[in-house]
Amino acid sequence: MRILVLGGDGYLGWPTALYFSRRGHVVAVLDNFAKRRWEAELDVAPLLPIGTLQERILAWREITGAKIQAFAGDLQEYDFVEFAVEEFGPDAIIHYGQQPSAPYSMRDLRGAVTTQVNNLVGTLNVLWAMKEVAPQSHLVKLGTMGEYGTPNIDIEEGFFEVEHKGRRDLVAFPKRPGSFYHLSKVHDSHNIMFASKTWELASTDLNQGIVYGIDTEETRLDERLATSFHYDSIFGTVLNRFCVQAVTGLPLTIYGRGGQRRGFLNIRDVIRCVELTVLNPARAGEYRVFNQFTETFSVCELAALVSQAASKLGLEVATHHLENPRVESEDHYYKPAHTQLHELGLQPHLLTEETLAEILGRIQGASYRVRKEIILPSESWSRKSRAMKARASL
Amino acid sequence: MRILVLGGDGYLGWPTALYFSRRGHVVAVLDNFAKRRWEAELDVAPLLPIGTLQERILAWREITGAKIQAFAGDLQEYDFVEFAVEEFGPDAIIHYGQQPSAPYSMRDLRGAVTTQVNNLVGTLNVLWAMKEVAPQSHLVKLGTMGEYGTPNIDIEEGFFEVEHKGRRDLVAFPKRPGSFYHLSKVHDSHNIMFASKTWELASTDLNQGIVYGIDTEETRLDERLATSFHYDSIFGTVLNRFCVQAVTGLPLTIYGRGGQRRGFLNIRDVIRCVELTVLNPARAGEYRVFNQFTETFSVCELAALVSQAASKLGLEVATHHLENPRVESEDHYYKPAHTQLHELGLQPHLLTEETLAEILGRIQGASYRVRKEIILPSESWSRKSRAMKARASL
Repeated sequence: MRILVLGGDGYLGWPTALYFSRRGHVVAVLDNFAKRRWEAELDVAPLLPIGTLQERILAWREITGAKIQAFAGDLQEYDFVEFAVEEFGPDAIIHYGQQPSAPYSMRDLRGAVTTQVNNLVGTLNVLWAMKEVAPQSHLVKLGTMGEYGTPNIDIEEGFFEVEHKGRRDLVAFPKRPGSFYHLSKVHDSHNIMFASKTWELASTDLNQGIVYGIDTEETRLDERLATSFHYDSIFGTVLNRFCVQAVTGLPLTIYGRGGQRRGFLNIRDVIRCVELTVLNPARAGEYRVFNQFTETFSVCELAALVSQAASKLGLEVATHHLENPRVESEDHYYKPAHTQLHELGLQPHLLTEETLAEILGRIQGASYRVRKEIILPSESWSRKSRAMKARASL
Repeated sequence: MRILVLGGDGYLGWPTALYFSRRGHVVAVLDNFAKRRWEAELDVAPLLPIGTLQERILAWREITGAKIQAFAGDLQEYDFVEFAVEEFGPDAIIHYGQQPSAPYSMRDLRGAVTTQVNNLVGTLNVLWAMKEVAPQSHLVKLGTMGEYGTPNIDIEEGFFEVEHKGRRDLVAFPKRPGSFYHLSKVHDSHNIMFASKTWELASTDLNQGIVYGIDTEETRLDERLATSFHYDSIFGTVLNRFCVQAVTGLPLTIYGRGGQRRGFLNIRDVIRCVELTVLNPARAGEYRVFNQFTETFSVCELAALVSQAASKLGLEVATHHLENPRVESEDHYYKPAHTQLHELGLQPHLLTEETLAEILGRIQGASYRVRKEIILPSESWSRKSRAMKARASL
């Protein structure tokens, strides 16, 4: 198949491209390198050294003989998007090309507006280009479990049947997102649902849990193929950050009481879920939602698992509760469904001690690169903190 | 009270400003005149001649002695928004300042992107300015009944209690919007709900039905106070368009079979609803939703009412079914709740023959200004029509 990976320079996009390429698919990546700019702007960097996209593509070709095509440009520019989609002619468009950080979207007005406009306009342009020049292709869009929030009822996969005053309907599962980033994904979901129906496009929204892990089978082939693993307070996700803290002798920092429960999945399962989705596409006019995670943990449970795995490696790990910068419930019901990807054949890599030991070991090998000062959050999301100052206009 | 009307140059914003001003409130209007630009761009114009905002404000002062302050600028520019909000210090911010047309949002990619970015960024800036410089003020935001679409269950006012697998929660009523314009209002609703909770702001979302009518008590005082009544295929709403067609001897054009049922309200009730909302504000941290309409009609029922009223005036009226440019159900269940504004004291002006006769009479007085060629839709919303071409990028 012909696979176009939007955001193909990123943490998930790059290993996704390698995975499909290694399995004989024709792969192109598209990126505008905005994430690298945001990293520079915020003075953070991935743990492992990351070459330019061209260096990585050349390394891949040298190692495997496989070619990956690259489109350098911005999803906010329609003419570029239409050109790339028409030129490449994808069977599937895997859309990771977004500002991916909730803290980035909450740190100031510019972060909020940039996140929402970048994410929303990019997706609108992709949908429009599909309508114009690739109506047969299948959009595989990365959403987030955070779109649902933590309602007091079981979370279903995108839709649920409701009985109300004696009548029934299948309706969109209500959303309660917790940041301007999560809101941008909710906006996208509504736009995609509408466009799929109106223009008879095929689309799948993957409401993904929190991803952890540093390697895939492909990135392990050569150090030049590493993906951009983040551990900082802006782009680092909780489990990856805990692992870096454990290796470098820092306490694991739990936001608030740590009762927040979320869905998690291994980076290898992300890619397998995307593959299963691509191989089992939506129909024309169909908008599907799969919940993409394999297990749920509370933040405290994660801290305990990391501490345990680290102690087996001789690392002594403390935990420390910080004032929660987020406005979120720290003790809540959480039971989200996640059966559709399993029914398609997903066999999860669960969060075993062995998995944690592998991640911790890999971080140990690069621990000299860790910058401890970028790990702690510096802003509160609530109005009470004056640290969140408006900085700029669009 | 101090009332800031965003979009105060528009069809609803202008008479709202006059109404509050006449009742002794301190009123300011804010507008960037984008609507006038869009009118020029699309080669359409309001039925009645409309002076500049300053001319209208001076006329109001001459007639009533009351002052209205004006802020000329764009809600997409944060510094301007913060300046206006801080300078004026509103108790209530009435937010009509958006691209208001579904057809405009569907005619091309530029319309879609402009509508969503303009509406979303404007509201984000207003919320941010409230947080920064006016945390006590009350945001009264105009939404639309079109956010809900036409589900097979009764529509509630913003939220409803759901029982699911033996557990209960009060959740946001699911949205099924039918255009990029309606989607922009859904996005706003989610952003406002989040910001109200996170920053403890007071907000009310008025999910408004389709407005009809040409005059209020205040606009009738002088021809220079007229509001911008549209009858064209882009900015004209269905009933206003039917009235112009009836007066000018054109057939009433029904999109499709005409079974589409919607909520409607008189322009005078719009303003009374807004007043009731302002006088009974939301609490800090509260996000309320009121459904703002007084009656429901199918498009065919409206056509029949207009025909009947017109015939009493000696006008002969035909009806004509057009191929529906919209992708929408033409035969559906529709039972939306609308009790909260009535409980606050709304006494509706219903769509009587007398009301229709008054509108038709006023249009007759200006019928020499009608441009018949701008009334019929020229684009289909579905992919099958190649008329919807991408024209530009952001």
